[in-house]
Amino acid sequence: MIEDAKRIMEAAIQDVMPAQGVYRALDQITLPVDGKLVVIAAGKAAWEMGRAASVRLGALIDEGIVITKYGYSKGPLSRFEIYEAGHPVPDANSFLATSRALAMVEKLGEKDTVLFLLSGGGSALFEYPLVPEEELISVTEQLLGSSANIVEINTVRKRLSAVKAGRFALRCAPAHVFSVVLSDVIGDPLDMIASGPAYPDLSTSAQALDICERYGIRLSRESLFFLRERTVREIHNVTTYVTGSVRELCHSACRTAKGLGYKPVVLTSSLGCEAREAGRFLSSIAREYQDAERSYAFLAGGETMVHVKGSGRGGRNQEIALAAAEGIARCDHTCIFSFASDGVDGPTDAAGGYVDEFTMDALEKAGVHYRNELENNNSYEALKKVGGLLMTGPTGTKVNDLSVILIRR
Amino acid sequence: MIEDAKRIMEAAIQDVMPAQGVYRALDQITLPVDGKLVVIAAGKAAWEMGRAASVRLGALIDEGIVITKYGYSKGPLSRFEIYEAGHPVPDANSFLATSRALAMVEKLGEKDTVLFLLSGGGSALFEYPLVPEEELISVTEQLLGSSANIVEINTVRKRLSAVKAGRFALRCAPAHVFSVVLSDVIGDPLDMIASGPAYPDLSTSAQALDICERYGIRLSRESLFFLRERTVREIHNVTTYVTGSVRELCHSACRTAKGLGYKPVVLTSSLGCEAREAGRFLSSIAREYQDAERSYAFLAGGETMVHVKGSGRGGRNQEIALAAAEGIARCDHTCIFSFASDGVDGPTDAAGGYVDEFTMDALEKAGVHYRNELENNNSYEALKKVGGLLMTGPTGTKVNDLSVILIRR
Repeated sequence: MIEDAKRIMEAAIQDVMPAQGVYRALDQITLPVDGKLVVIAAGKAAWEMGRAASVRLGALIDEGIVITKYGYSKGPLSRFEIYEAGHPVPDANSFLATSRALAMVEKLGEKDTVLFLLSGGGSALFEYPLVPEEELISVTEQLLGSSANIVEINTVRKRLSAVKAGRFALRCAPAHVFSVVLSDVIGDPLDMIASGPAYPDLSTSAQALDICERYGIRLSRESLFFLRERTVREIHNVTTYVTGSVRELCHSACRTAKGLGYKPVVLTSSLGCEAREAGRFLSSIAREYQDAERSYAFLAGGETMVHVKGSGRGGRNQEIALAAAEGIARCDHTCIFSFASDGVDGPTDAAGGYVDEFTMDALEKAGVHYRNELENNNSYEALKKVGGLLMTGPTGTKVNDLSVILIRR
Repeated sequence: MIEDAKRIMEAAIQDVMPAQGVYRALDQITLPVDGKLVVIAAGKAAWEMGRAASVRLGALIDEGIVITKYGYSKGPLSRFEIYEAGHPVPDANSFLATSRALAMVEKLGEKDTVLFLLSGGGSALFEYPLVPEEELISVTEQLLGSSANIVEINTVRKRLSAVKAGRFALRCAPAHVFSVVLSDVIGDPLDMIASGPAYPDLSTSAQALDICERYGIRLSRESLFFLRERTVREIHNVTTYVTGSVRELCHSACRTAKGLGYKPVVLTSSLGCEAREAGRFLSSIAREYQDAERSYAFLAGGETMVHVKGSGRGGRNQEIALAAAEGIARCDHTCIFSFASDGVDGPTDAAGGYVDEFTMDALEKAGVHYRNELENNNSYEALKKVGGLLMTGPTGTKVNDLSVILIRR
């Protein structure tokens, strides 16, 4: 069954590659016949997304810009300016490139169109500060060094920015913006992905000030002024397409599983509990369907957590798989596998793990003490000994994780 | 929606009452027209099961015996001898009552029938030792005082018994035995429930000896002899009906939910992970089905664990519910509830807990700090303040727990 598992995994990763997401979005967009077309691509996948637009739209593009992380550009693209810049802390190149993008869109009229291609990392890469650059960098560094979570960090920094929190969309007006968002945040909160340059802001001044107080962030008087300013609550010139999210990862896996003869059932696309307990829960579902008359594939997308207690090596997905092995030990034609769509599961070279009804016996034969290794967060070493690692290498996309139960009848 | 939740819970508990289980089993059994009928009921629900047989079969019963725990008999039953005995450590009354049961069945011929009604607690209550009584009591006390689990305890003590591990069934031969088992063990392992008096033994001598060594159990030479003896591997005169298990709890809840307009989906009947993570997993499933066009009921039976870290008060089911509240806070017409079928969830007077999309707001208004209370295992106090406790009182049955997601469309 590991062959089925690999086919489902590989097809799902292919389907959530940035270029595929752009192609799917462009299939839904009708571009105006007259008027200019400017393409602004920002984020870690900006080059791939920009290239996909270039491949599909070619000479329809008047001008374009790619703003990505240092080392992430793969070469020149016709009609595009390519910039590499700082991430996770923005730098002078972020500001320079973003000011170029602003210059491109601010001269557009109402018949013109902006194709805005946004991916993870955009918060740092696509940035033009309202406060002096050093102040923005200082606040960002303080926030990243605190225990503030990504939602809290974005709530503060979007207010110090001339492009975040919907402000970029206003700069594009009166041109219409088609915003294609490659989501790497569970639940696709569009105000949070890259701090929402083309999406209304849902946060408040009070929240931003509260966060700065809680984490002891030092602010200039100018920053304080902007934290108290209203952000953009309504935007009328943007159409948004979310693509490449964990939902698409699930749906792609559904299609492949169906093609292989399984009845697919999506349990969730927002899994968020402790990895090993998710593995145990999944194994109890697998046991329930042992008497089923047809083949089933249960899918759970999301991103689990590992509260590391041991000194072993592993990742979220490998721990889900290892924890699920015990519960399916007496099952029949049943496997459970889990993988990170970016191909990198925790600090390992594996994308995830695979177990089936033979795994517990194999672990015993290999001299692996199951409970000890699980307790020690040593899923990588344990699975490695029984051929239970899924390897893809870095995939070039990042839309969270997928866990799958296959029951073959 | 709490009304739907209560209806589903109350109907499910009614359906897994011991008497209902006996009635359902008797509906499937065709008793021989001639020949004697002896009813042997042992376990904590023996009186209720014996009474159900008496109500249904009346004068068809030639003689019967009820062997239950002290205080569990509710009065005389026509044609039955009633015994109360020691639990969880067997005592002289266990041995006396069991010897009476053996006397009743050993005189039967091949046209005769034994109706054997077994429930939890039978390991202690239905016992006649092969070794001196004091030795059996000593070994049982040592095992219960060690960290051995119930499977390990039963693996040892069944070998010191004249009735366990299938030996009772041999004593009944040539009469046929209809064995009706009220299961309180997840997965219904028939060799383990009451140590399997009428079921082939699946354990080995090596396992029993290993367990005694691991937990330092002191054994007489006679006990050692019996630990090395073969147990019964094949039985041909028994027909077994499992009833009142957590599966029936799930199926009953399915029926009620369907009657209320929900499409029922059984996720599992062998849930066994950490309670709060199960709650989080369930809430992520609830979120997935927010866009569904019809009403859904997802059911998960089993028994979760709570690794207590805090000093609060609560139970497995209350913790599942409280942990699920956060994840369904922005949902629509959605609730999650969880209850113990015996009506006693942890060291509280509640059977379980109920949360819906309004619970998080209600907790905040009530001044409850959600994360702190969850961390402190204080689910009882938190849910009490927002009307989220499910109360039934002790129900008189015990077939594990049930967790339910309801999504009303």
